[in-house]
Amino acid sequence: MKELRQISIIGMGLLGSSVSLAVLRTLAGVKTVGYSHRAVTRRKAKRLGVATEVVDDISECVAGADMVIVATPIRTFEDIFTRIAKGLKRECIVTDVGSTKVLPHCWAERIFPKSVYYVGSHPIAGSEQRGVEFARDDLLEGANCIVTLTGRTDKRAAARLKKFWSRLGCVVKVMTPAEHDAIFANVSHLPHIVASALMNASYGDELKLAGKGFMDTTRVASSPTNIWMDILLTNAKNCSRAVDRNVKELLKLQRALDSGDEKQIERLLEAARKKRAALIKYKVNRKEEL
Amino acid sequence: MKELRQISIIGMGLLGSSVSLAVLRTLAGVKTVGYSHRAVTRRKAKRLGVATEVVDDISECVAGADMVIVATPIRTFEDIFTRIAKGLKRECIVTDVGSTKVLPHCWAERIFPKSVYYVGSHPIAGSEQRGVEFARDDLLEGANCIVTLTGRTDKRAAARLKKFWSRLGCVVKVMTPAEHDAIFANVSHLPHIVASALMNASYGDELKLAGKGFMDTTRVASSPTNIWMDILLTNAKNCSRAVDRNVKELLKLQRALDSGDEKQIERLLEAARKKRAALIKYKVNRKEEL
Repeated sequence: MKELRQISIIGMGLLGSSVSLAVLRTLAGVKTVGYSHRAVTRRKAKRLGVATEVVDDISECVAGADMVIVATPIRTFEDIFTRIAKGLKRECIVTDVGSTKVLPHCWAERIFPKSVYYVGSHPIAGSEQRGVEFARDDLLEGANCIVTLTGRTDKRAAARLKKFWSRLGCVVKVMTPAEHDAIFANVSHLPHIVASALMNASYGDELKLAGKGFMDTTRVASSPTNIWMDILLTNAKNCSRAVDRNVKELLKLQRALDSGDEKQIERLLEAARKKRAALIKYKVNRKEEL
Repeated sequence: MKELRQISIIGMGLLGSSVSLAVLRTLAGVKTVGYSHRAVTRRKAKRLGVATEVVDDISECVAGADMVIVATPIRTFEDIFTRIAKGLKRECIVTDVGSTKVLPHCWAERIFPKSVYYVGSHPIAGSEQRGVEFARDDLLEGANCIVTLTGRTDKRAAARLKKFWSRLGCVVKVMTPAEHDAIFANVSHLPHIVASALMNASYGDELKLAGKGFMDTTRVASSPTNIWMDILLTNAKNCSRAVDRNVKELLKLQRALDSGDEKQIERLLEAARKKRAALIKYKVNRKEEL
């Protein structure tokens, strides 16, 4: 990617640092400049050498960058976009790695000058671990990465960004921010809501008898609250609709239980089982993690 | 356990066969007699040597038994109890390993003569695998086993059954069948309903983007439909109530999303996260599987 000489990364958490390491491993001649608002994170990032340079000032970080990647919590984007907007080089590509995309696009459109190109990204990579100390240069290897475009997104910038994520090992898919947020409400944000509700619906000593099934079904409820507040609050409408769909399915099964409708219970359980079997087959064929 | 000379096991699936193997390993001088209604299963059980004897006739199986363990699907119990009732030795202990307990107690009370003692059991052990070929003599090692009693259960028989499961390596807990079914509706049957509903609430191509969180949350929806129909249909009222509790929690979160009530979303997510953290701590302390 010869047009890229400097990539600046704001936010040196697990994802930001891993992107930096992947760039340094993969893209010869590209330097990365990292920034975190926390001094302790900057010190760790320097010590661990996750970026070519780690700087103490956000404007210094983005100065001269050909690409800026914002890897902080979603609800900080608006403020960060505002702080960096004036210091961006002409034709700089700005992206982010947030888990919702409609609002980042809105903020970018309002805040950035026409001379820079914003395109959304959502690399679906992560781990139970958090923080720069867990950064890995292969975290993105084989991960899906959604690149989001609107009718106003610069086509050449989008093509370059797609190529960038591909080079880092991602499987890139393109969609609009609205499509992205609707889909991820169902396949990612709803499971979190469901797991939290299941956890909150059970109490006291009975939990001591919870087995492996309960632990699996509630696993994602252990994720960090602040990250999920960010996601749910920036995708509230889609999540609310997803809850509607889910409650409808629950009540369908409940009605069958109440009326002892064996056939219908069988139909519903079997539909779920078969759909999951097909999904497993799809993922196994693509060598995705289960 | 000197009063035990013969234990008969009806149903040679994973659990029945594993109980037989555990008896043969643990209780010196006790013989096991196994029966399955399927000829192919009986042949496999004989070939694998999972019981001292495998017989072709259910009456022959229970004749002379000091203890009979019914390890077939729950909705076959009523019929099996009826078929074996007359052939049981005086003071024989009859139990089963079904996942719901109220109905088995009702059936036993109605069908068995006063001369034999029914006590319910629910050893919480299993694996993704099914069938006699996956039987293991250590499947019950460290597993919780609920022994269920009513006011009419023979106390000495119950004490002997508790000792039996303990000797096989189980952690035994005693409760009434009603308590059992209410608790397991919440911690085991509800997760299955929730996972199936989540699976059914999402469709088509969007599932291709489902990640690890979705797969975890829906994992139990892959369990065999017939086993779960048995469980749900024999615990329908409690399961229906559990769905109510769960829907209530979902709508609480939905209302907070709809009104943008950040504080409430934080409260709900954080409550779930903390409760799960406490549960993990409890299970880790007891060296239970997570």
